[in-house]
This record gives sequence, structure tokens and C-alpha cells, in this order.
Amino acid sequence: MKLRIGIIGAGPSGLAQLRAFDSLETKGQEIPEIVCFEKQSDWGGLWNYTWRTGVGKYGEPIHGSMYKYLWSNGPKECLEFSDYSFDEHFGEPISSYPPRPVLFDYIQGRVKKSGLRKHIRFNTAARWVSFNEETQKFSVVVDDLVNDRTYTEIFDYLVVASGHYSTPNMPYYKGLEDFPGIVMHAHDFRGADPYEGKNILLVGSSYSAEDIGVQCHKHGANSVTLTYRTTPIGVNWPEGIKEVPLLKNFEGDVAHFSDGSKERFDAVIMCTGYQHKFPFLPDEMRLKTHNCLFPDHVYKGIVFNDLPRLIYLGMQDQYYTFNMFDAQAWVARDIMLGNLPLPEKEERTKDIEKWMDKSLALKTHDDEIDFQTDYIRDLIRMTDYPEFDLDTVAAHFKKWLKDKDEDILGYRDQTFRSVMTGTMADNHHTNWIDEMDDSFERYFSD
Amino acid sequence: MKLRIGIIGAGPSGLAQLRAFDSLETKGQEIPEIVCFEKQSDWGGLWNYTWRTGVGKYGEPIHGSMYKYLWSNGPKECLEFSDYSFDEHFGEPISSYPPRPVLFDYIQGRVKKSGLRKHIRFNTAARWVSFNEETQKFSVVVDDLVNDRTYTEIFDYLVVASGHYSTPNMPYYKGLEDFPGIVMHAHDFRGADPYEGKNILLVGSSYSAEDIGVQCHKHGANSVTLTYRTTPIGVNWPEGIKEVPLLKNFEGDVAHFSDGSKERFDAVIMCTGYQHKFPFLPDEMRLKTHNCLFPDHVYKGIVFNDLPRLIYLGMQDQYYTFNMFDAQAWVARDIMLGNLPLPEKEERTKDIEKWMDKSLALKTHDDEIDFQTDYIRDLIRMTDYPEFDLDTVAAHFKKWLKDKDEDILGYRDQTFRSVMTGTMADNHHTNWIDEMDDSFERYFSD
Ligand SMILES: Cc1cc2nc3c(=O)[nH]c(=O)nc-3n(C[C@H](O)[C@H](O)[C@H](O)COP(=O)(O)OP(=O)(O)OC[C@H]3O[C@@H](n4cnc5c(N)ncnc54)[C@H](O)[C@@H]3O)c2cc1C
Ligand SMILES: Cc1cc2nc3c(=O)[nH]c(=O)nc-3n(C[C@H](O)[C@H](O)[C@H](O)COP(=O)(O)OP(=O)(O)OC[C@H]3O[C@@H](n4cnc5c(N)ncnc54)[C@H](O)[C@@H]3O)c2cc1C
Ligand SMILES: NC(=O)c1ccc[n+]([C@@H]2O[C@H](COP(=O)([O-])OP(=O)(O)OC[C@H]3O[C@@H](n4cnc5c(N)ncnc54)[C@H](OP(=O)(O)O)[C@@H]3O)[C@@H](O)[C@H]2O)c1
Ligand SMILES: NC(=O)c1ccc[n+]([C@@H]2O[C@H](COP(=O)([O-])OP(=O)(O)OC[C@H]3O[C@@H](n4cnc5c(N)ncnc54)[C@H](OP(=O)(O)O)[C@@H]3O)[C@@H](O)[C@H]2O)c1
Repeated sequence: MKLRIGIIGAGPSGLAQLRAFDSLETKGQEIPEIVCFEKQSDWGGLWNYTWRTGVGKYGEPIHGSMYKYLWSNGPKECLEFSDYSFDEHFGEPISSYPPRPVLFDYIQGRVKKSGLRKHIRFNTAARWVSFNEETQKFSVVVDDLVNDRTYTEIFDYLVVASGHYSTPNMPYYKGLEDFPGIVMHAHDFRGADPYEGKNILLVGSSYSAEDIGVQCHKHGANSVTLTYRTTPIGVNWPEGIKEVPLLKNFEGDVAHFSDGSKERFDAVIMCTGYQHKFPFLPDEMRLKTHNCLFPDHVYKGIVFNDLPRLIYLGMQDQYYTFNMFDAQAWVARDIMLGNLPLPEKEERTKDIEKWMDKSLALKTHDDEIDFQTDYIRDLIRMTDYPEFDLDTVAAHFKKWLKDKDEDILGYRDQTFRSVMTGTMADNHHTNWIDEMDDSFERYFSD
Repeated sequence: MKLRIGIIGAGPSGLAQLRAFDSLETKGQEIPEIVCFEKQSDWGGLWNYTWRTGVGKYGEPIHGSMYKYLWSNGPKECLEFSDYSFDEHFGEPISSYPPRPVLFDYIQGRVKKSGLRKHIRFNTAARWVSFNEETQKFSVVVDDLVNDRTYTEIFDYLVVASGHYSTPNMPYYKGLEDFPGIVMHAHDFRGADPYEGKNILLVGSSYSAEDIGVQCHKHGANSVTLTYRTTPIGVNWPEGIKEVPLLKNFEGDVAHFSDGSKERFDAVIMCTGYQHKFPFLPDEMRLKTHNCLFPDHVYKGIVFNDLPRLIYLGMQDQYYTFNMFDAQAWVARDIMLGNLPLPEKEERTKDIEKWMDKSLALKTHDDEIDFQTDYIRDLIRMTDYPEFDLDTVAAHFKKWLKDKDEDILGYRDQTFRSVMTGTMADNHHTNWIDEMDDSFERYFSD
């Protein structure tokens, strides 16, 4: 019988897995039967923007965490697919920091070209997975949401590509229940417009806090205050944005901070990160980790060590994104096909420990970039995913960090050179801070 | 082996089931082993208020739909337990329309008194149910959220008491994705404060639209507009609240209605009802229904006709609540214990059809009240749940409807006489419209 492979999720990671098999097929090789389940009505994962929050049409928790006016927060040259360049897709140079719809278009280009939609069952949520030791096969119960029908499919390998920036981590602070304004998690933020003229408190000091803060500032918030637990973001903030030590509690609409200061706010947005959450898996198959560069229990960051027929994609904290998912998916493909022999468990454990030890020793963001660069290099070395100049990409990332430090409102006006094609990015027709329209049409207008 | 009974949900319905068995036990009878799974950290279902929206601490969709300043929307004399009166609980007469914390306290009184907490596993979500035809037993996989651990329990009967006012039905209207203000479902509404001075659009014409409208008006909204699909609520609205025909679409922050009128709004709250949603059940065990007085496929409104070992509680649209759940739970108990013989499927189907036909012929709200009164009478007749004067309760409900028609801001100041104890309700110390504090402490202060 033909090998059967199940994929959960058709975001960038799930699509990378489909494309990895497709790249073999176009070389004339036979590939396994692949079924990808996607609970949304379209592919693209987080990039498939929805105005909805809470639950969707069919009552499933909304996956999307992206918002109106979201632009790439890293240079596109750092995430470019090495087998499908921006030049190939757009036919002309574009800027380094495109808005969401433009990147979404790019993600779709490669999978449309390959006709990969046929593998995907949309509006279908993975509901419950079990593994039969005897047959060494997975049973996956899925829920066909449109027809309100459940059914089971059997697979030899299961690829979990369900993302990990979707289920909020929402801490409690004393008095929050009596805060009179809107309280939400970044996951439910859908754009800065409602905060015009408002005083906004953002809890957290990572990407969401930074970008939602900058968005609210750009779209007319009266003041933006970020409160940090460990370290402030510490860039050169413009007037109207500031960072303060950690929130202690609320009294009515007044927030008290651990430095003794206090302030009135109209709204609180918790930019406090996300949980790795796999409600469809029994706990012995669950990847249990926080958001970090090398989660425990996964060989090469992807093979579940206790059950190597179970693959996880994209579960790392992400400097690299699309091309890292590709590298992972190519390796996963070769392991599933038996083209890449899997070492014994003991050896796998050692390899995991080696990477984890390295990751725990990292001190600076630059160290982290180097670590993830090395990780991807290790993956690409194992397979035929087209190599690319990873050192230059790492340098791009380091420059990006510096650009942000210097000018948080202007870093998206910088341009980078593609390591895939050598093309230098174009300047966008409008500076980011003045560009209020993030639509595809506006981006490509002159 | 002792009979094992699983209950999903420790809201009023699940607690009614626990109490039904308890009432036998106090009479000296042996009762089955009962395990109740509750995904929240406390009992009370919707009455267990949470400030959270979206997902909870452990990433599960938030169950709660109640909000700050929620008061009973019907006379408490219509929902009183017939085996545990308000007098017994509070020791003094109270008003007919208490705020949520006071009713929550009452719900808890009976189950605390009986020590029923020991049956409940909190922070435990039912994840996946299957039924073994051979053994005639259910396997229920549950997720121990605190310990991130899944395990399976086997039961002879399964009682689904997971509620049906928790998963939003959220329609789409053209342009909604570009509406600049807050857009939410009533499920995520947590109190009227953020809408002070605002112009609010509420979609729907049932209880949520009515009460959220009145709440926003009371707490200082500038204007409240309700838009109806089928029939307006049609009460005598005060200035500041109005009803208009159905919304057609949005252009920016302007809503267009089907009568050609248009208006600017700051926020949109969809009071468009809820879905019966059972993600933990295979579809052949799912109750598939909309919100109605007699769902199809359940004998006596509770026994799943295709698999009578599966019981549903509280799945009806609700005039009656707590004492209806009780009547259902008492009947379910006797069926599970074999004390109430279950007719053959054909006969059950006929009975279901009889009730459904009756329910489809109902024309007015008064008809509906009579129908649900008859339904409860039918249940109570079958078992030993203490009888009570249902005709008077029906009359209370009809008076309640009239009171609302005449004075939507004042109906909660009316008082009713208990059919359980004969006690006349007290007047609350403050008229509802002037009472801004819904706390337990304030309610019992003089
Ligand atoms: C607010 C925000 C902004 C970001 N911006 C950028 C950026 O500018 N640049 C960048 O490179 N990266 C960005 N990212 C990082 C992002 O994680 C990746 O770009 C990428 O989307 C990850 O892809 P993925 O496929 O692993 O996961 P996701 O994109 O999350 O896709 C997972 C898919 O799995 C599906 N799924 C989940 N559960 C089930 C189930 N039970 N059954 C069936 N399907 C299921 C989901 O519906 C979804 O489609 C951002 C992330 C966030 C949260
Ligand atoms: C906004 C609002 C206001 C209301 N006001 C009134 C009122 O004033 N008076 C009145 O009489 N009625 C009111 N109701 C009606 C309400 O439905 C009932 O009072 C009552 O709460 C129903 O009880 P239940 O146990 O059937 O469901 P719920 O109260 O919804 O309880 C269901 C329980 O099941 C749990 N659960 C769900 N899924 C799972 C799972 N997978 N695993 C484990 N546990 C699970 C939930 O956490 C919850 O605790 C109101 C309803 C709403 C939505
Ligand atoms: N394109 C864009 O513009 C854009 C915008 C937003 C997000 N993103 C992407 O989204 C992903 C997720 O980023 P994220 O910022 O949401 O998550 P994250 O990087 O995991 O950061 C979580 C933040 O929450 C803080 N935190 C956690 N628990 C807390 C608590 N109890 N109290 C206070 N602070 C707490 C953490 O502080 P500590 O440091 O103390 O742990 C950290 O600052 C990233 O991949 C990012 O690139 C992109
Ligand atoms: N204690 C309180 O104060 C209080 C407050 C709120 C709610 N509740 C309780 O909560 C429960 C649920 O009440 P509910 O009002 O949320 O739900 P509901 O009674 O089921 O009513 C749903 C409403 O949504 C409308 N609707 C559905 N789809 C629509 C669409 N696509 N476009 C426009 N309108 C649409 C329906 O209109 P149609 O008539 O056209 O179908 C109906 O008016 C009830 O038990 C109620 O008692 C109590």
C-alpha cells in the first residue's frame, strides 16, 4: 500500500511540506498520498487575515492573530524561499518590508503554481489523534465543519503544522476584572483605529508589544505605554511611546507599576505571547515547550523523539520563517521517505541535547540569529533544498536589529539585497510612517 | 460492577444531575459512581463570571457569556428549585430580580449543602468521546488542563450538560471587515462601561440585544440602535434606544439599513445568538439543532434517540431554567437507574414528533410559555421531583412579558410570590435603573 501522510495545518509550514513532496514529484519521483487538513476556509495560516475574533463561522477558535496595517517586521530578504524568489513571483523589485497582503500573495504563488490546493481539505479541523502501536499507524478524527460530520483517516506519518502564535497566554493582574475599558490579548487586536486619541497600555516587550505600540502611535493614539517584565525593548522611542517597569495592579482605570508610578488608561492590550497548544493530541504526543529557539524532545527540531513518525514543523521561536519551514519540511520529507536514515533514539537524544545546550548559552540577539542560522545550515546540509548564502542573511538580520534601535518608525524604509537573486529591493513609494493604506492595490500603485 | 455515570459540565444542568442522585442517596439508596468533568476552575457554568474573553488561562475557549451588571432577566420565582427554596438559602425575602452574584450564590447553596463538589474534576475538559457497541460503554478522553495530561474514563451512561449559550453565531455583513470601531459578539461583552458616550449598534432582537441595549443605555451610551431580522422587540423604548429594520452593510463606520436609512456607529455588538456545539462528540452522537423549545432526536427532550445511553440536559430554549434542568435530571436519573422503563425506539420517536408538532404550532410568547410549562409538567409527573404550582409560574412569566412591554427600565422592580414557599418577594432598596452596583455586598446592604 502507498504510504499515507497526514498534515495538520496549511499555513506556511504545512504548505512547505506539500511543496517539499511536490519538488520530488516534478523530478519524476513517485510521492506518497498526502492529505492536509486546514480548519480555516483558505490557506496561508496567520497570513490569511480575518476580521473575526473569538470563534469563527463554525464555532472554532479563530486562528488568526494578524491585524489591519500589519507589515513585515523583518526584511523580506530574510524569509525568501530559495526555490521561488520574489523576482519570480512579482516580476519586479519590491520594497524590503511589504504589507501582509503582498507577502500573502507571495506565499500563495508557489503553491498555486504547483497546483497543491488539491491535497488540502479546508474547513476541516483535526479533532483527535491516536497512534496504534501494533499497526504503527495514526488515526486522525477530523471534523468537516461545513457538513457537521466527523470521520477518521489513517496515516503512516503525521505532520503537525498547526502553528504556535494563536492561543494567547493571558496573565492576570489584580484589579483587571474591574478595569472599565477594553481588555484584550494581542491575538484579538485587529487594527489601531479604535485607539485614536486613546491612552493605551501594552503589556510585554517583544514583537507584538513593539509593533502594536508603533501601530497605535502611527494611527493617532494619544499615548502608548509599554510595560516590561524582564527587559525593556529599549529602542529610541519617539515622543508618545514610552516603556515602564512591570505592571503591578489596577485600581479602576489606573494602572500601578512596580517603580511606584501610576497612570490612567483607556484600554489594555496584553502582548504577552502565546501557548503551544495541541488540543487534538493525547498528551504523550504533545510538544510541551515555551517559545524558544530549540524546543526539547524534537530531533533536528522536528522529529518527535518518543514517536519518530510524528513530525512537528515551525515550532521554534522565529527569526527565520518561510525558508526555515522549508528546510524543516525537506528534511522531514526525506526522513518519511526513508531517504534520510534516522539514528537510534540515544543518538537523537544526544543531538537534541547538544542543540539545547547551545541555545541555553545564548546571550544576545546576535547570538540567537547565529544559532538559528547554524540550525538551518545543519538542516539544509541534509537534503536538496537549494542552498543560499546564510551568512549574508544573518548579517541582514543583525542590520535589521540595529535599524530598529535607531529608528523604530523608519526601519521599514530600509532596503536589502536578495541572496537568492542578487536583486536590490526597491524603495516603497511612500515612507512607512506616512502610508496609511496597506492594501495590495495601493502597494503596487505608483 | 457499579454503574458509572459521566457528566460533562458543572453548570446548573450538570449540578442538577448531581443533586438528583444525591436526593436518592439521602433517602438511603445506593447510587452509581459519578464523575463530572468541568473545564472551568469552578462550578456554576455561565453564572461563574469571568473577566476573560477569547481563551482562558489554559487556552480553552472561554465558556462565560455573562457580564458585569447582569441581573436576572426573569422573576426568580420562575426558576426556584422546588427542593431548595430562596427562603431556605437566604433566610429572608429578597427581590424578584437579583443580580448575578446573588443567583450564583443560590445555585451553589444546594450543592454545597450536599457536599457534591467531590464528584467534580475541575479544570478538566472533555476532549473526545467514543461509544463501544460491543461493551455498550463510553470512552471519554479528558484533558487535565493544569497538569497538561490526557486520560480516558469508561462510563455506562454519559450526560452532556455543556450548555448552548457559549459558542457565538456570528454573521457577516458586507463592509464589517473595514468597520473602524470595536466589533464583537455578545459572548465577549463584559459590561457597558466602555460604551459611555458612544453610539452603539446591536444586531438581533432577542434577550441579549434587549438587555445589552438597556445596559448600555443605563451606563451612559449616547445612543443605542437595535436592528432586527424578523420582528422588533417592540417594547416601549425610552429615548436613546430605538429599533430599526435589518442591517444591510457597512461603509466605514456608517451602517446602512434595509429601510434605506443609515447611521454612524462607534461599536457593533452582534447579539445574534449561539450555536449548539459539541466538538468533543463524534457527529453521530451530536445533537444538531438550533435554539428552540423542542429539539429533534431527543426523547422527553433529553434521551438521545439513536443512542439512549446518551443524555442531554438543558438543550432547549429557556423560559424555565433551573427547575426545568432539575425535572430533566430527575427523569434522566430514573432512566439511567432503570427505574423508569424506556419505551421502544418507535414509540419514543412518536413522542418526540408529538412534542415537535406542538412546538411548531406555537404562535405567541404566551403559547411558548404554556408549551414549556406542559413539557415540565410531563417530566415531573414521571418522577419524584417535588411538584409545584406550574400554572402560577406560567402566569408569572406572562406578567413578566407584560411588565417588560410597559416599562423595560422598570420591570425589574416588580415583585412576585414564590409558589414553593408562598413568600412574597421584597422590594430592592434601590430601583434597578439607579442601582449601579451589582455586587452581593451592595445587594444585602440596607
Ligand atoms: C501577529 C503576527 C505577525 C507576524 N508577522 C510576521 C512577519 O512579518 N514576518 C514573518 O516572517 N513572520 C511573521 N509572523 C510569524 C508567523 O508565525 C509565520 O510567518 C508563519 O505564519 C508560521 O507558519 P505556520 O504554518 O507554522 O503556522 P500558522 O501560520 O499559524 O498556520 C497554522 C495553520 O494550522 C491550522 N490549524 C491549527 N489547528 C488546526 C486543527 N486542529 N486542524 C486543522 N488545521 C489547524 C491553522 O488554521 C493555520 O492555518 C507573525 C506572527 C504573528 C502572530
Ligand atoms: C448572557 C446570558 C444571561 C443569562 N441570564 C439568565 C437569567 O437571568 N436567568 C436564567 O434563568 N437564565 C439565564 N441564562 C440562561 C442560562 O443558559 C442558564 O441559566 C444556565 O446557565 C444553563 O445551564 P447549563 O448547565 O445548561 O449550561 P451552562 O451554564 O452553559 O454550563 C455548562 C458548563 O459546561 C462546561 N463545559 C462545556 N464544555 C465542556 C467540556 N468540553 N468539558 C468540560 N466542561 C465543559 C462549561 O464550562 C460550563 O460550566 C442566561 C444565559 C446567557 C447566555
Ligand atoms: N509583522 C509584525 O509586525 C509582527 C507583529 C507582532 C508579532 N509578530 C510576530 O509574532 C510572534 C509572537 O510575538 P509576541 O511578541 O506576540 O510573543 P513573544 O515573542 O513570545 O513575546 C512574549 C512577551 O510577553 C511577555 N510576557 C509573557 N508573560 C508575561 C507576563 N505574565 N507578564 C508580563 N509580560 C509577559 C514576555 O516577557 P519576558 O521577556 O519577560 O518573558 C515577552 O515580552 C513573533 O514571531 C513576531 O515576529 C510580528
Ligand atoms: N439575564 C439577562 O439579562 C440576559 C441577558 C442576555 C441573554 N440572556 C439569556 O441568554 C440566552 C440567549 O439569548 P440571545 O438573545 O443571545 O439568543 P437568542 O434568543 O437565540 O436570539 C438570537 C437573536 O439573533 C438573531 N439573529 C440570528 N442570526 C441573525 C442574523 N444573521 N442577522 C440578524 N439577526 C440574527 C435572531 O433573530 P431572528 O428572530 O430573526 O431569528 C434573534 O433575535 C437566553 O436564554 C437569554 O435569556 C439573559
